[in-house]
Amino acid sequence: MAEKMVAAITSMDEDFAQWYTDIVKKAELIDYSSVKGCMILRPYGYAIWENIQEILDTKFKAVGTENVYMPMFIPESLLNKEKDHVEGFAPEVAWVTHGGSEPLTERLCVRPTSETLFCEHFANVVKSYRDLPKIYNQWCSVVRWEKTTRPFLRSREFLWQEGHTLHATYEEAVEKTEQMLNVYADFHENELAIPVVRGKKTPSDKFAGAEDTYCIEALMHDGKALQAATSHFFGDGFAKAFDITYTDKNNKIAHPFQTSWGCTTRMIGGIIMTHGDNNGLVLPPAVAPTQIVIIPVAQHKEGVLDKARELRDRLAKCFRVKLDDRDQSPGWKYAEYEMKGVPVRLEIGPRDIEGNQCVLVTRHNREKVFVSLDNLEEAVAERLEAVRRGIYEKALANRERRTYRCKTLDEIKTALAENGDGFVKAMWCGEEACEDKVKELTGVGSRCIPFDQEEISDTCVCCGKPAKSMVLWAVAY
Amino acid sequence: MAEKMVAAITSMDEDFAQWYTDIVKKAELIDYSSVKGCMILRPYGYAIWENIQEILDTKFKAVGTENVYMPMFIPESLLNKEKDHVEGFAPEVAWVTHGGSEPLTERLCVRPTSETLFCEHFANVVKSYRDLPKIYNQWCSVVRWEKTTRPFLRSREFLWQEGHTLHATYEEAVEKTEQMLNVYADFHENELAIPVVRGKKTPSDKFAGAEDTYCIEALMHDGKALQAATSHFFGDGFAKAFDITYTDKNNKIAHPFQTSWGCTTRMIGGIIMTHGDNNGLVLPPAVAPTQIVIIPVAQHKEGVLDKARELRDRLAKCFRVKLDDRDQSPGWKYAEYEMKGVPVRLEIGPRDIEGNQCVLVTRHNREKVFVSLDNLEEAVAERLEAVRRGIYEKALANRERRTYRCKTLDEIKTALAENGDGFVKAMWCGEEACEDKVKELTGVGSRCIPFDQEEISDTCVCCGKPAKSMVLWAVAY
Repeated sequence: MAEKMVAAITSMDEDFAQWYTDIVKKAELIDYSSVKGCMILRPYGYAIWENIQEILDTKFKAVGTENVYMPMFIPESLLNKEKDHVEGFAPEVAWVTHGGSEPLTERLCVRPTSETLFCEHFANVVKSYRDLPKIYNQWCSVVRWEKTTRPFLRSREFLWQEGHTLHATYEEAVEKTEQMLNVYADFHENELAIPVVRGKKTPSDKFAGAEDTYCIEALMHDGKALQAATSHFFGDGFAKAFDITYTDKNNKIAHPFQTSWGCTTRMIGGIIMTHGDNNGLVLPPAVAPTQIVIIPVAQHKEGVLDKARELRDRLAKCFRVKLDDRDQSPGWKYAEYEMKGVPVRLEIGPRDIEGNQCVLVTRHNREKVFVSLDNLEEAVAERLEAVRRGIYEKALANRERRTYRCKTLDEIKTALAENGDGFVKAMWCGEEACEDKVKELTGVGSRCIPFDQEEISDTCVCCGKPAKSMVLWAVAY
Repeated sequence: MAEKMVAAITSMDEDFAQWYTDIVKKAELIDYSSVKGCMILRPYGYAIWENIQEILDTKFKAVGTENVYMPMFIPESLLNKEKDHVEGFAPEVAWVTHGGSEPLTERLCVRPTSETLFCEHFANVVKSYRDLPKIYNQWCSVVRWEKTTRPFLRSREFLWQEGHTLHATYEEAVEKTEQMLNVYADFHENELAIPVVRGKKTPSDKFAGAEDTYCIEALMHDGKALQAATSHFFGDGFAKAFDITYTDKNNKIAHPFQTSWGCTTRMIGGIIMTHGDNNGLVLPPAVAPTQIVIIPVAQHKEGVLDKARELRDRLAKCFRVKLDDRDQSPGWKYAEYEMKGVPVRLEIGPRDIEGNQCVLVTRHNREKVFVSLDNLEEAVAERLEAVRRGIYEKALANRERRTYRCKTLDEIKTALAENGDGFVKAMWCGEEACEDKVKELTGVGSRCIPFDQEEISDTCVCCGKPAKSMVLWAVAY
């Protein structure tokens, strides 16, 4: 039975895309519905999102963020106020044209993002320097009418948070843009155990209406890149388009400076593709709905279930713990919780009870340790930390192995052909034409200009002219 | 200055509707936007909702609820599957007809409620009695294209939670319907300090597609009723319409039984209209974003701000506390936090410090007590409880004073004319014609058939035929 369950997932080495689809369904993260391109987040998938929300929300509030809620609709005339912004988003929005049986006098789009609504509100409520800064965030769903969709990675509706801030000075706004990128980066590295590269998008790849877009880029197990979160600096462009002004300390009218920053349920796709294996999901302990599952062995024998319940009650004080006492074989249960990516499994049977011990098995490497019941809490905490560290190191090793430093287009082609997809580090002159050509000839696009620059050579990988910066290139999800 | 702020609210005795509108704006709960009929929840308003969510979510999970997320769109053909349901909702939904520049092949409505989506999902995932019960909930926003809107009470988009459950037996589903109504009722009475009447809607007033709708009804300060939450029993009607079946323990195919239950941001309107007064909001401590505000007196004097900060740090361990050290007069601050409904104000000045004491003022009655700093935490907890109890008792007294037991239509008319709007308790024969006639002749509609029945008389208040039950009647929001 255990083998049967495992056999039901496609091997990731054979067909990574199908492996991914198998996992999201069989680990019961999502279900499809008759609403094309939208997904249902099932309890197990949504619980991961709730844990992500709770951690990030606390981090946001620690840096002064206040949550708000804006309408989900944007009148067409409001969307049209910032030229670059509407050009970027209008082609992919859903339009509401009727309320009940009546046609609307003005079409409303379902928000693809809410800069325009926040700007309108800021213009209403900000009068003086005393009203600044505004550091707002909302948790909501947004809609973008994508043609091709995949669960978590790209869907027509998705859940996210969008932060929107307003500052008196240019410098303060830049600092906020950087601060929030670092919040995302630290969350990915520490809590999600996903190593990321921090950088800045090239001009062709900026958010519609932004002066600068910062991002974090992660490398998935298959060597493709995932943009995991972004933080945008708007300068005072939106403030001018929406006529947001305030009276400064010298009693002069000025335009404030603005940022926005967001991350989405896409991160769950990133978790799957960074840590998962052929037995299923592997969840980082910080966001795992169940951190430890207790599986009684020979549970019909006297005292086993009682002891298992006692351990559950003990561990529940510090961890998210579940006891599975269903009438199924331990092997069947092992396979189920491996599929669901529970970080630590606790096995307890009659002999363990006799020896005042139990077995802890870490999901990512199936390592078994026998631990005394006397110090169970410490042992479990240590094992959870071992999972976090272990999966981070595995992901980092995968990224290192798949990072290619290239001086020429031929080196890029060879590296990818010989070692498979990955991060390419190569120099760039700053011209969009070279960006396009690299993509056309090698298949990898520019992901970002990393903050940690390396000097691979001093000429552009494409045109040979003097290089301005090292760019990170990859095939992206 | 303090007087000026207070003067800016309309008196509730002069114009209750305008008083309400003044409060939602001046306490900074909401803002309007160019999206007609939708509102912006500002940080202070949204923080109340976050506290409500946290408390209710914990209560829901304690009775086995799991959170999920369904798409926000419903294809027209799916909405059409249950006849009563679509008739109830189709006239008031917003329709999406275009994605980007392309017309959709089928219109999608923005969810007004999600029974249809949950049913479709249940049909997919429920196969056997082992898959039951399903006890699901989602926190989201929904849209109903209302013609007349008012902040919190009726808006085109609002935030809510909707629970949807599926059970093997009729009895278990009825029990769940009752259980969730009681969760709502207890939350209102204990945490929101709003007394409620528990009852069942008359058949003409049921949710579209339900067999029974249970509700809680609260009486606002002005004598009008507010339906505060509902819990619906669906029988197996939806299960049949959506072909949800499962294999029972005897290996027979059966239809399961279903419930749904919800409450919304409307509760914030209920809080305002139950507890507010001519100085502004009065917030129940359980959901107040700030439970205690510390106002230093003569804060320029040595040691005052240090002491105020010390008290803030102490209280922050147990309460949501805020220190206001802005350069404004204490009186100005008092008025501001009275407007914002902060339950307890702590005043501390040089003389207090000398005497190792401070002043605690409860918002609802402005009662002042001097307390020793030695037992400050206990004193604050006691004062918060005094606010909770005090505002509950005040609301209950208002309801008692405005509850009229009437045997005839003339008695109803006289009671309302002499004492103003309120709850009318009067007998009913069970005929819809009499319900309509009572409303037409006296202005009050049937709110519910309370579970706590009283025998006002033995004949219908309208037709004089034998009465079946006592009905609660009122003018409703």
